[in-house]
Amino acid sequence: MGPLEFFRLQTREEVLALYDHFPPVGVEGVDLAQAGGRITAAPVSAPEDVPGFLRSTMDGYAVRGQDTFGASVGAPQYLDIKGEVPMGAVPGRGVGPGETLRVATGAMLPPGADAVVMLEYTAEHPDGTLEVRRAAAPGENVLKPGEDVARGETLFPAGRCLRSQEIGLLAALGITRLSVYQKPRVAVISSGDEIVPLDGSPRPGQVRDSNSYLAAAQVAAWGGLPLMHGIIPDDLAALQKTLAGALADADLILVSGGSSVGARDLTLAAIQNLPGAEILVHGVALRPGKPTILASLRKTSPTPLLGLPGHPASAAVVMEVLGRPLLLRLAGLLDPAPWGRSVPALLSRNLAGATGREDYVRVRLRREGETLWADPVLGPSGLLSPLVKSDGLVMIPLDVEGRFKGEKVVVQLFGGA
Amino acid sequence: MGPLEFFRLQTREEVLALYDHFPPVGVEGVDLAQAGGRITAAPVSAPEDVPGFLRSTMDGYAVRGQDTFGASVGAPQYLDIKGEVPMGAVPGRGVGPGETLRVATGAMLPPGADAVVMLEYTAEHPDGTLEVRRAAAPGENVLKPGEDVARGETLFPAGRCLRSQEIGLLAALGITRLSVYQKPRVAVISSGDEIVPLDGSPRPGQVRDSNSYLAAAQVAAWGGLPLMHGIIPDDLAALQKTLAGALADADLILVSGGSSVGARDLTLAAIQNLPGAEILVHGVALRPGKPTILASLRKTSPTPLLGLPGHPASAAVVMEVLGRPLLLRLAGLLDPAPWGRSVPALLSRNLAGATGREDYVRVRLRREGETLWADPVLGPSGLLSPLVKSDGLVMIPLDVEGRFKGEKVVVQLFGGA
Repeated sequence: MGPLEFFRLQTREEVLALYDHFPPVGVEGVDLAQAGGRITAAPVSAPEDVPGFLRSTMDGYAVRGQDTFGASVGAPQYLDIKGEVPMGAVPGRGVGPGETLRVATGAMLPPGADAVVMLEYTAEHPDGTLEVRRAAAPGENVLKPGEDVARGETLFPAGRCLRSQEIGLLAALGITRLSVYQKPRVAVISSGDEIVPLDGSPRPGQVRDSNSYLAAAQVAAWGGLPLMHGIIPDDLAALQKTLAGALADADLILVSGGSSVGARDLTLAAIQNLPGAEILVHGVALRPGKPTILASLRKTSPTPLLGLPGHPASAAVVMEVLGRPLLLRLAGLLDPAPWGRSVPALLSRNLAGATGREDYVRVRLRREGETLWADPVLGPSGLLSPLVKSDGLVMIPLDVEGRFKGEKVVVQLFGGA
Repeated sequence: MGPLEFFRLQTREEVLALYDHFPPVGVEGVDLAQAGGRITAAPVSAPEDVPGFLRSTMDGYAVRGQDTFGASVGAPQYLDIKGEVPMGAVPGRGVGPGETLRVATGAMLPPGADAVVMLEYTAEHPDGTLEVRRAAAPGENVLKPGEDVARGETLFPAGRCLRSQEIGLLAALGITRLSVYQKPRVAVISSGDEIVPLDGSPRPGQVRDSNSYLAAAQVAAWGGLPLMHGIIPDDLAALQKTLAGALADADLILVSGGSSVGARDLTLAAIQNLPGAEILVHGVALRPGKPTILASLRKTSPTPLLGLPGHPASAAVVMEVLGRPLLLRLAGLLDPAPWGRSVPALLSRNLAGATGREDYVRVRLRREGETLWADPVLGPSGLLSPLVKSDGLVMIPLDVEGRFKGEKVVVQLFGGA
């Protein structure tokens, strides 16, 4: 059975712990308009205060708060209107005792003013007097310089994924370019004598190269750049040459190998023949996904290789469970938020676990009133259609015999709109 | 106060119902390798069976199931090994009574065989005899032609977002190009005398154009193509000219207007001056987000315009609550899966609602043992930093006074890795 027998099955946690072996990818500069979804490669600090000046947050009148103390509908205060503050400009004059200037939302407060009375609590009299019917405490309806972000403040550490609001904050600070991790380049290699390209007509006995398209779509969805290396026949020299070529410009190599023992042995032999290569994992305690391979290629700047099972559903699960964390590690992401990747649901039927393995069962989600049900979608791991019908995976842990109907489970969601 | 007074505040449901007014965007062809995350514009059917032939799902021996009946360790059956089936090829011969051929996972079954005995339940004897220690029922360890997908079967309806598994299935079927909806082109217009470009140095009284960068990043994250139209001063003719220009190549127009009443009136006037334009909504029962505008531009092929509030946090919330559903409607997506966009949590403090409005409160998620807490992140809606500290929004419905500490709430998640 080849080298398989010399390896003990490794658990998911053991495999994930090995990822520390691989450093994140390189760094590049990117324009802010293209930075959404990218990951910071260095901490970012605020070069200036936001806002940069005392601003009104309402349409109204800039006042000295103390001049409005005690104002009410029954006992209004009166101030002299001395003009208005043009938007985007420095006020032409200040506000002295008993004085006020009209301000629109966002306008700069004139010197002397420390609050804004909202339009609806005032009335302008024909003689240029403002009737103030409610007091505005100093600081009311204004933003102080640096109240949003203070100059020198650290906005984000390295390893943070930039969402829309981070982009907005960087724009407010005038940061138009920043340092992010490169998108991991992921070589996708398909091997097997039975595999034909998509545009070929498979003869009986042959199948199209669906696994590498599935894996490439996952890589792209998770922020990587898939590099398709095509189909390599079951030939040691050809596979070895392709691996060596892929190593030149990839941060991660995926080999979508055949499912047969012979195909796996060939992949292992090709890896072992590469100088400096080391097989770290051969066989994981997952169902599906047992024949997974993890190797480190090259001693200097170690590059990971993930050998995927040949069955499409197995490969897809291994990519979700082991491939995605590896890709995110290489991408430089620290602490990916768990929210949104999983959802609690109730299992709609009993599920038996697999002895000595973490078991991943495809489920479809179904809402029934207030209850979210997870319906297992069964079917051989050679099939793609059950995966298409599924919304995510339910994991049955290593040491658990199974899950019961009605039990609360966590569904690990597949991506998608 | 301008035309504001003639409009009644509309609820979120009322605004969403108006979206039926706008047809989805046009259709384009796309290569399968670029189709991940795109939305089908027509139903897709299977042009052929998958698999196309009877395949083994295991390494083992192709047999006539009936020849193995009753086989056990104590009472094995014996078959004649007649050779092997090469991968990717049509078997050179069939399997007659008492005969077998070696097969690897994925290989085609020879005529006559209807099952595969797994390697581990067999032993090869030196005389070319196979000892079978466990019976294989007909159909065991094989995939039948059409078992995954049958020719002519509808795979997906129009309006389906293509995830990785859908890409894999299409690849297996040899579908290399398909018809998808175009990515909605979204014009982003920023208006206001106080707004300066990112690379400018704002003088006192001026601020950088953060809102349009935030909105553009949201558009891109949700699958649209943002088209930046820059900053337009508070000038009716200039705004009108920009709107007319944007209409020429956009499926949706976002106007990130000023927050002041004057700036809103200007936007309304510019819209009303466009031929065929109609203001559908001016003012929504949302907090934040009240000054939102929805208009339909052009009578033929109506194009929506969404006027966003000027406060950054208000604009971001309106984009999440009203902009995203509009974008997805234009993108042709039917029934976006709700899973993954929200997560249940417990509120960590009391929250008062707003009378007559749906209230959206930013929250940060925090896990404490088994409990997920939603911590409200308070702060004026003119600030960006509270949004950066938040993971999502909690909605307090129109007719509810508030939410209590410890109450279960649904957190609508912001995107992000």
